[in-house]
Amino acid sequence: MSEFLYDRPRPDLLETFENPYPARDYEITHVAPEFTSVCPKTGHPDFGTLTLRYLPTEQCVELKSLKLYYQSFRNHGAFYEAVTNQIADELIRLLKPKELELEANWTPRGGLHSVIRVTHTA
Amino acid sequence: MSEFLYDRPRPDLLETFENPYPARDYEITHVAPEFTSVCPKTGHPDFGTLTLRYLPTEQCVELKSLKLYYQSFRNHGAFYEAVTNQIADELIRLLKPKELELEANWTPRGGLHSVIRVTHTA
Amino acid sequence: MSEFLYDRPRPDLLETFENPYPARDYEITHVAPEFTSVCPKTGHPDFGTLTLRYLPTEQCVELKSLKLYYQSFRNHGAFYEAVTNQIADELIRLLKPKELELEANWTPRGGLHSVIRVTHTA
Amino acid sequence: MSEFLYDRPRPDLLETFENPYPARDYEITHVAPEFTSVCPKTGHPDFGTLTLRYLPTEQCVELKSLKLYYQSFRNHGAFYEAVTNQIADELIRLLKPKELELEANWTPRGGLHSVIRVTHTA
Amino acid sequence: MSEFLYDRPRPDLLETFENPYPARDYEITHVAPEFTSVCPKTGHPDFGTLTLRYLPTEQCVELKSLKLYYQSFRNHGAFYEAVTNQIADELIRLLKPKELELEANWTPRGGLHSVIRVTHTA
Amino acid sequence: MSEFLYDRPRPDLLETFENPYPARDYEITHVAPEFTSVCPKTGHPDFGTLTLRYLPTEQCVELKSLKLYYQSFRNHGAFYEAVTNQIADELIRLLKPKELELEANWTPRGGLHSVIRVTHTA
Amino acid sequence: MSEFLYDRPRPDLLETFENPYPARDYEITHVAPEFTSVCPKTGHPDFGTLTLRYLPTEQCVELKSLKLYYQSFRNHGAFYEAVTNQIADELIRLLKPKELELEANWTPRGGLHSVIRVTHTA
Amino acid sequence: MSEFLYDRPRPDLLETFENPYPARDYEITHVAPEFTSVCPKTGHPDFGTLTLRYLPTEQCVELKSLKLYYQSFRNHGAFYEAVTNQIADELIRLLKPKELELEANWTPRGGLHSVIRVTHTA
Amino acid sequence: MSEFLYDRPRPDLLETFENPYPARDYEITHVAPEFTSVCPKTGHPDFGTLTLRYLPTEQCVELKSLKLYYQSFRNHGAFYEAVTNQIADELIRLLKPKELELEANWTPRGGLHSVIRVTHTA
Amino acid sequence: MSEFLYDRPRPDLLETFENPYPARDYEITHVAPEFTSVCPKTGHPDFGTLTLRYLPTEQCVELKSLKLYYQSFRNHGAFYEAVTNQIADELIRLLKPKELELEANWTPRGGLHSVIRVTHTA
Repeated sequence: MSEFLYDRPRPDLLETFENPYPARDYEITHVAPEFTSVCPKTGHPDFGTLTLRYLPTEQCVELKSLKLYYQSFRNHGAFYEAVTNQIADELIRLLKPKELELEANWTPRGGLHSVIRVTHTA
Repeated sequence: MSEFLYDRPRPDLLETFENPYPARDYEITHVAPEFTSVCPKTGHPDFGTLTLRYLPTEQCVELKSLKLYYQSFRNHGAFYEAVTNQIADELIRLLKPKELELEANWTPRGGLHSVIRVTHTA
Repeated sequence: MSEFLYDRPRPDLLETFENPYPARDYEITHVAPEFTSVCPKTGHPDFGTLTLRYLPTEQCVELKSLKLYYQSFRNHGAFYEAVTNQIADELIRLLKPKELELEANWTPRGGLHSVIRVTHTA
Repeated sequence: MSEFLYDRPRPDLLETFENPYPARDYEITHVAPEFTSVCPKTGHPDFGTLTLRYLPTEQCVELKSLKLYYQSFRNHGAFYEAVTNQIADELIRLLKPKELELEANWTPRGGLHSVIRVTHTA
Repeated sequence: MSEFLYDRPRPDLLETFENPYPARDYEITHVAPEFTSVCPKTGHPDFGTLTLRYLPTEQCVELKSLKLYYQSFRNHGAFYEAVTNQIADELIRLLKPKELELEANWTPRGGLHSVIRVTHTA
Repeated sequence: MSEFLYDRPRPDLLETFENPYPARDYEITHVAPEFTSVCPKTGHPDFGTLTLRYLPTEQCVELKSLKLYYQSFRNHGAFYEAVTNQIADELIRLLKPKELELEANWTPRGGLHSVIRVTHTA
Repeated sequence: MSEFLYDRPRPDLLETFENPYPARDYEITHVAPEFTSVCPKTGHPDFGTLTLRYLPTEQCVELKSLKLYYQSFRNHGAFYEAVTNQIADELIRLLKPKELELEANWTPRGGLHSVIRVTHTA
Repeated sequence: MSEFLYDRPRPDLLETFENPYPARDYEITHVAPEFTSVCPKTGHPDFGTLTLRYLPTEQCVELKSLKLYYQSFRNHGAFYEAVTNQIADELIRLLKPKELELEANWTPRGGLHSVIRVTHTA
Repeated sequence: MSEFLYDRPRPDLLETFENPYPARDYEITHVAPEFTSVCPKTGHPDFGTLTLRYLPTEQCVELKSLKLYYQSFRNHGAFYEAVTNQIADELIRLLKPKELELEANWTPRGGLHSVIRVTHTA
Repeated sequence: MSEFLYDRPRPDLLETFENPYPARDYEITHVAPEFTSVCPKTGHPDFGTLTLRYLPTEQCVELKSLKLYYQSFRNHGAFYEAVTNQIADELIRLLKPKELELEANWTPRGGLHSVIRVTHTA
């Protein structure tokens, strides 16, 4: 199996770089339409779009490391609500943003289409 | 007849799991475009889309159990207004959400298209 | 001529059923895109979409009876303004709703397209 | 009841005028999106769009008379297939066209949407 | 359980009426977007749109009876391929059409969306 | 009446200019979405779009004169079929084109929408 | 790791059922918009939509087993061209179809968007 | 007047470069949506889109020179038909293409919208 | 290599002209859909659309100089967040605008699509 | 400057892999919407979308190497016609395809939008 594939979330892969303009409030948005994890109840894969929006303070998340962190959920089993909050928590801990919103928009399973939205203000 | 099909609503099928992040307010939406029940007056099937949106407190509804609960209305006869309120009631009782909204959007019958919307705040 | 066709409006056809959840405020919408009556001046048929939205108190209007009531205008001659207000009046008298809105959106006649909207608050 | 409304089809209302350019082949199309008749089985009204296309020989159908003829089906009960063919027959008899096509596109009834298409070549 | 719901297909419900214009070839199309049956493997409901197109000979299928026949599959378990062919067979036997096409377009199950198309020429 | 308004079609207003490239076949299209004339039966105005397409031989129609010619139908009463053929005839006589097509697409009158298409080949 | 996830393609998971109507030619299409495998060069996941269309002979592919077979590529590394042909080959061997077409439409990688299409006739 | 503005078409501005692949047939298209000239009758500006498509032989037209040539019509008065043919002629003389098509699509003037299309084959 | 290509940002290329109407507040927007720079981590090019909106005080940015300034990032390596803020800073320093907003909308990299938005008020 | 950026086209970067299914004809398409090179006349950057479609024989082009090859034109100056043919030539030489088509669709320059299309058959 490829070295890029993991069986558990790898927050240790996340890297930051120093916010190049900490004196100014500005908004960063990263949209990831190819997120996938596994349903803990059925073992079948889930697919969704993660939209992360935040106002940085001292650190910004490095984009490639964010991609690798998202990829590390590929074979991980967890409910939608847990996955979304776990990622939000990790990014809040890492970035200490002024504001952060994470919305996970999941493709239909069993005819149901779900959206989980977490909002955080420092 | 299949074991998955019922002739009466089965709220006992609903399962919850512990809200993994009870300390945080976040929003959960489940859209079910394949809901069907039976018109109590004509005996003909009705079809609609149920959109559930809520802010959890201690429990979240498990998605597959929600699907099975919705499926249990398949051969049940009730007016649109009763079905929508009955489901809202059951979910409010089960989840004790901070807020909950349930909108049922029914396909046309006799040339009329109906929408029922229930809103609840704790 | 069919027993379903009438030459005058038939409010006596309207039926109600007991609001199954009177303790809760919720919104009911019925959209009827196939309403037709007759222009009293030219004798030509008019066509329109009736959108009824209301908050019930003790009674809800039964859907099939609403359809039959609407159908009873088929050969009735009245101006747009009169038809829309007459139907709103009848439903307000019958349902005693907290709020009710009726919008009639008429297809073009002589190149003019008309909309009549009636709003009622208890 | 208005003098414009009838309880049976009135082909006698159809009028023609002399084709002003019989020496030339040309195509005439009339689209009528507000046709309505009655279902002979349920007594409920049916709604549809009639699209007539023909190549005239010596006569053309006068537009207002076509509208009145269509309106005369308003309270007439007949199956989709019969209505469409009956109108096509009447127009073929009246106009003796080189070619004629009549398509009736009906709005949904009981969840089914139907289209009947008749084609005639002299 | 309502008298309109069945646990097996009911071809005996199908009715025909005499083709009012047997001397002429014309095309009849009925689109049914609310077909539902049951997956024989999982017991879960399937949903789809059936599009029937045919050229009649001596008989036409009556629309309400077609609706009831389609409804009778509501609690019946069968693969997509079998359901589509079974309905096509029944209608071919009943109508002896010059041509008939039946396309079943199923909503996604497990992330897969399927279409089955049967074509028949006399 | 203003000098710009006419009570009869004025083909004498049409002007041509010498085809600057008679040695070559090329195609000219003029679309006029603001044509208006009068219904000879009701006296009400009709509106339509005229699309003229032709291959010139020795003469081309001058655009402003074409506009004035079209404007001269403003208070003229004639059936759709007659207007369309009359204009086609006038332009064929004037231009002697290799090919010419004129399509008149009329806005709805009494709920009917009509299209007349004339095609000519030298 | 879930029992549903594999590190190599599992054609042994494919199941067939007997074609219920072998005497008739008909067309089966399955669209899978959530296919994912791994790039053998970078180790990063690839995502695509597989569209399978075939005319069955004696066997049809069972839908759930097709889903599981597709899922078994989740952690498998192979070029687009190889994956698409390998799946086509397996299905041709299994189903011996009269005709089969498989199109894989891949989401962009490094700014490039690719489509591979395989066509087979018996 | 600015050195960039001309009062007459300047074919002398056109430059070519040697076709880099004369051994192969390939197609070149240049779309110029900002062409403008002057109506010789009213003095008002005309605007249009010129679409040039050709198969080169030994020379290709240099893009910037084509732009300047087009710009040189800015204050030139000529009918649509003349402008389009004049440009086509100039390019045919210059490029000696295997095939060339020039379509001029003019914005509405006095309510009329015109298209002139010239096709040339060597 | 062309004199127009640079390996570092060239703010010295930016030119301004005097605001011709400093007494009035008005809004200026420049949209540049062809911005490109280089990812400092992977060395691969990035592409995006820069939307600049500002209210001028005494100076406006000259459009061609803005284009050249943007082009000077072509071979420059920097994170999205740094590029966007650096350009905003330079323009704020140069123009001293009442308000300025710069939004950079980047095309997908590794399946992630990013937007950086900087807002400044004097 | 990054090691990924070049000042001349680098066909030596192209890699192939053995066609995994040489016995079968199938179609491969790669769409690259982020191609950029430099205008040899003005020194300004050009942007375009390259669409490559081919039927492989013994070799397929490896996707990442194709991306790097395309990137190597980033600072290279050449006319549209030359760039498109040069890339087509290189790929024809490398892949010896049964058929190959390359279309380059360039964004507007000086108000002109160009498309170059090369087609090759073995």
